[in-house]
Amino acid sequence: MSSGTTLKGQPLDKAALESMLRRRMFYTPSFEIYGGVSGLYDYGPPGCALQANIIDTWRKHFVLEEDMLEVDCSVLTPHDVLKTSGHVDKFADWMCKDPKNGEILRADHFVEDVLEARLKGDKEARGQKVEEKEDDPKKKKKKAKSEAVKLDDAVVKQYEEILAQIDNYDGEQLGELIKKYDLRNPATGVQPSPPVAFNLMFQTSIGPSSNLPGYLRPETAQGQFLNFAKLLEFNTGQMPFASASIGKSYRNEISPRAGLLRVREFLMAEIEHFVDPEGHKKHARFHEVENIELAFLDRHTQLSGSTAVKKQTIGQAVKEGLVDNETLGYFLARIHLFLKKIGIDQTKIRFRQHMANEMAHYACDCWDAELLTSGGWVECVGCADRSAYDLSVHAKKTGAPLVVRAQLDEPRVFEEWEIQIEKKKFGPYYKKDGKTVEAAILATSQQERGKLAKELEETGKVVIEVPGVGDGKVEVSKDLLAINWVKRTEHTREYTPNVIEPSFGIGRILYSLIEHNYWTRGTEGGDEARGVLSFPPAIAPTKVLIVPLSNNKDFTPIVHKLSQKLRSAGVSSRVDDSSASIGKRYSRNDELGTPFGVTVDFQTIKDGTLTLRERDSTKQVRAEENKIIEAIKDLVDGKKTWQDIESELPLFEGQEVEVAVR
Amino acid sequence: MSSGTTLKGQPLDKAALESMLRRRMFYTPSFEIYGGVSGLYDYGPPGCALQANIIDTWRKHFVLEEDMLEVDCSVLTPHDVLKTSGHVDKFADWMCKDPKNGEILRADHFVEDVLEARLKGDKEARGQKVEEKEDDPKKKKKKAKSEAVKLDDAVVKQYEEILAQIDNYDGEQLGELIKKYDLRNPATGVQPSPPVAFNLMFQTSIGPSSNLPGYLRPETAQGQFLNFAKLLEFNTGQMPFASASIGKSYRNEISPRAGLLRVREFLMAEIEHFVDPEGHKKHARFHEVENIELAFLDRHTQLSGSTAVKKQTIGQAVKEGLVDNETLGYFLARIHLFLKKIGIDQTKIRFRQHMANEMAHYACDCWDAELLTSGGWVECVGCADRSAYDLSVHAKKTGAPLVVRAQLDEPRVFEEWEIQIEKKKFGPYYKKDGKTVEAAILATSQQERGKLAKELEETGKVVIEVPGVGDGKVEVSKDLLAINWVKRTEHTREYTPNVIEPSFGIGRILYSLIEHNYWTRGTEGGDEARGVLSFPPAIAPTKVLIVPLSNNKDFTPIVHKLSQKLRSAGVSSRVDDSSASIGKRYSRNDELGTPFGVTVDFQTIKDGTLTLRERDSTKQVRAEENKIIEAIKDLVDGKKTWQDIESELPLFEGQEVEVAVR
Repeated sequence: MSSGTTLKGQPLDKAALESMLRRRMFYTPSFEIYGGVSGLYDYGPPGCALQANIIDTWRKHFVLEEDMLEVDCSVLTPHDVLKTSGHVDKFADWMCKDPKNGEILRADHFVEDVLEARLKGDKEARGQKVEEKEDDPKKKKKKAKSEAVKLDDAVVKQYEEILAQIDNYDGEQLGELIKKYDLRNPATGVQPSPPVAFNLMFQTSIGPSSNLPGYLRPETAQGQFLNFAKLLEFNTGQMPFASASIGKSYRNEISPRAGLLRVREFLMAEIEHFVDPEGHKKHARFHEVENIELAFLDRHTQLSGSTAVKKQTIGQAVKEGLVDNETLGYFLARIHLFLKKIGIDQTKIRFRQHMANEMAHYACDCWDAELLTSGGWVECVGCADRSAYDLSVHAKKTGAPLVVRAQLDEPRVFEEWEIQIEKKKFGPYYKKDGKTVEAAILATSQQERGKLAKELEETGKVVIEVPGVGDGKVEVSKDLLAINWVKRTEHTREYTPNVIEPSFGIGRILYSLIEHNYWTRGTEGGDEARGVLSFPPAIAPTKVLIVPLSNNKDFTPIVHKLSQKLRSAGVSSRVDDSSASIGKRYSRNDELGTPFGVTVDFQTIKDGTLTLRERDSTKQVRAEENKIIEAIKDLVDGKKTWQDIESELPLFEGQEVEVAVR
Repeated sequence: MSSGTTLKGQPLDKAALESMLRRRMFYTPSFEIYGGVSGLYDYGPPGCALQANIIDTWRKHFVLEEDMLEVDCSVLTPHDVLKTSGHVDKFADWMCKDPKNGEILRADHFVEDVLEARLKGDKEARGQKVEEKEDDPKKKKKKAKSEAVKLDDAVVKQYEEILAQIDNYDGEQLGELIKKYDLRNPATGVQPSPPVAFNLMFQTSIGPSSNLPGYLRPETAQGQFLNFAKLLEFNTGQMPFASASIGKSYRNEISPRAGLLRVREFLMAEIEHFVDPEGHKKHARFHEVENIELAFLDRHTQLSGSTAVKKQTIGQAVKEGLVDNETLGYFLARIHLFLKKIGIDQTKIRFRQHMANEMAHYACDCWDAELLTSGGWVECVGCADRSAYDLSVHAKKTGAPLVVRAQLDEPRVFEEWEIQIEKKKFGPYYKKDGKTVEAAILATSQQERGKLAKELEETGKVVIEVPGVGDGKVEVSKDLLAINWVKRTEHTREYTPNVIEPSFGIGRILYSLIEHNYWTRGTEGGDEARGVLSFPPAIAPTKVLIVPLSNNKDFTPIVHKLSQKLRSAGVSSRVDDSSASIGKRYSRNDELGTPFGVTVDFQTIKDGTLTLRERDSTKQVRAEENKIIEAIKDLVDGKKTWQDIESELPLFEGQEVEVAVR
């Protein structure tokens, strides 16, 4: 539980921040004039530019830096693919219904809310200070209200332990908690019904005849897996390699809340790094990051009911086995560096390991990069080891060879059961099921083959289990199939790669970034109402605001020329020639997070000089146009800091330009 | 009908091109290992990079150049929004069913195919040369096969006239054509059933309780319209302005065909330019483009059965009224410049005006930028005048003021009927319907108000038509409402802006761009099998291929350093250190459209010099590393041409580096 702090460490006034974001159109509820739809948001111009800059940095930091193969795959996905991947059966949240008012509740959130309210009531009863969370007044009825009721110390401990592992309960366990602690919906005072699974995928139908059911993808990963063989070929067969994808995914959240943090349509950036599982997943560039220190919260700590983090270098963490292997460790460190680069507060990042029940059905290990916001710790990047799960299930279902053939240094000689299929007869005999039956036969283990060989010899036929064909059992006679004990020499090794998947929720990162960079001039003795977003220049939606002193016609050509020069220098700028005072215009600009401002005044007409203002310090320098443009370019490219510029160009103490803020 | 030509004017071998695009993974059918889903494609690494570069150029050419307000809105859209916009009722194609085999046919395509086949048969019977279209063998059964049957000259003329205006027929008319000319499905030999409307939107359901039906948006425009009031405020109330959006849209095509040209999920880039309808939609920057010559095919020409284009400057076309106004004309010219910039063949662009029946329900005029491909002319950019349609219908439905208030130069005095609503009583009386009833009252015309005033005076009440409330008629008594004849002075004018909408189908542009830039070395006396994609450097997926002569270990650090230097110069490169011959590696690269290649050889180890190869001429120069990097940067930024570089750096005639191609 946290109510958040600003960039300068002051308590964060979330209502003030949200009102500012709304006023400046960072984002806005979609379809608002139609009453809105919860969990859907539109990005306005500054939000859209911020998002584009985060994506641009992501692409450079990951895709270009490591020659990843970027792909753009379909969002519409047929049922079969997501059935095989496990999403149709397992991609669900637990949902309860209030029997009195019909309200639908997400079970884990419901348990969390009620227990947190009771703990808060207990603190009140004990006379302790309680941090008041800012609630959206419209949603107040949904929130569990705290009453000042003191709890037994033992009960407090139980509640705290439950909350520390809230993500680890399945539906049945959540149902038991609801009964055991008599958790009631505050809106009606009754216990909700036992949790049932609700699949989170949006369903639709592809084509005119409605016979091809499909879903909107819940992740971009599947498209990358299905293209694995082509990508490997594109990469001239070389391993390891990574694919990457940036695109929208969809999850039909039961009860979206918390603004951009839990939405139904969201932009993801995902990497699938394919690696040979032999040799403990070493990474060639691990040494570049091994000394980077991260904050870890492992699963054992959470299961013991604690959320204390442990700080250590990623090198040490891999050595101690806290993080399973170098490749996983490499990406955790790279994720950290990316978040740092875009301006995330480094003291507000932790890496939390998933508990066993919490993990997605495809993962064998998973660490989330969580960012601290006013709503608590938020999962913003997942880094999962999906093992060979996805490639294996798709290969098994389709018969496509989603494998790597690697040259062996030493040939390997061994004996084994070999299957020979009489292709000429086999195909015509099983017709459309041929491929499936063949795949099922080839999927048998050595042990099974031994048994089948015996069966074939004794009875002249074998029975193979082939789900989906006939009654699931298929008979194969010996004129279609031979199984022999053979001696073989292998020069190549065939394996299914493992996948390490860093997966970024761009909207959550964007929102956290806003909170981490927000402060008000009040912090430094100025006007409390004047908000500032101190984005790094590379990430800021617009780099420069051009402000003519007044609407004097003589300023127009100067402003126009300056704007064109900045554009050809690759720097995005906006002109504000509205009639508002300069102070007001700069204030508007601080709220948009624009790092630099250039004022065109009467002096400019005389001698061509301009003032350049820095957002955070509000300090200004003055120089001729070319020098100012050069300074801006160096600042935006990160080649110079504002301190460098202050030492190079004469400071300007403008009387009319700025109302002093400190 | 066209079978297409290459960049060098030779006949285009479409099968060879498609095989190359597939081999190089520009794009690939989605879910191919599951058998694929028609109308869905994934972009592989070069396709994805090509798309990103087209988008990047688009953003600079339109959004940054004109300070457009870019937004990113939800794809999931609730039913009400698309009901109001007219898409639920009117966004449909005409679909026929074959009663014999159940095949579903898109009616206009069916008529087109059969008539084209008959015309082809006629040509054969007359002994004329027939261009053979390359067909996908898998789809052959669907294509109407031509038989050499001679037709009457009058019939030929009729067919040609029908084909010239095929987009202008509605379902009933298509049904009449099918009957009149006895058009039969070639697969079964029977006439299909009469056309019925099939809505093209993908439907889904939002939220856990299935009570909020929604669609995947068929265009990005609606999100921009719904945000109009906020965007206007963001733009500090100034008009005109444009919003823009880049994102996916969805259309459930009846029978997708022709690869990337007709797909179910596609990337769009749309601009909504909001303009005051008074003053005939002048544009402040029209003079910048007025001398640009475009090829026009207007609706009268098409209706007369011809497809002859007329070339003239956009200035002249607006003056003559061929193009309705400056704003529409400005965008047509800007579209042309954009297409030229990314490398579209200028001789393969025409602007075709929509015929009356063909226009979307929201448009009052529309010009398509069509590109000539091997499949004929393809609509790639639409430029519609949507008038005030969308803003008006949404304002009427929701009561939101999607209008502009402009200061009048001279106050305007006039008398009119004014409506006064007793808000205190009105709201509580109509409860939830209050807003809707009020909106209906306020939407009445002056003439209606006159009648209502009389009715109110005579009967003490009026009856208002309010669709969707009760039985559609609502009684309002005089204690809730007054209608008076008043004299008013207006200092401001309120108006609903008109919208000019340039709308880009990125996938279609991308495919056309590939065809327009494709040729083979055979054209110049080299190997016919060696394809080249001559993309402009700014658009090419990768700018530089780095090729070490062999896998000698000494090359590795040089390659690594070079690759890093290019990256920090902002130039994307790829290393090909596979064991293939240099000639083979460059050949692979020509197919990927990479404009430049750098070879690292033994000379490099000695003196640090590198060779730089240009894709189209295969000429090479040799110089030290820094000069080569500088040359590449100037070439990619468009500051220098290859001719410049050839004159500045010494030519290199490498013996081992390249197998001569001419």
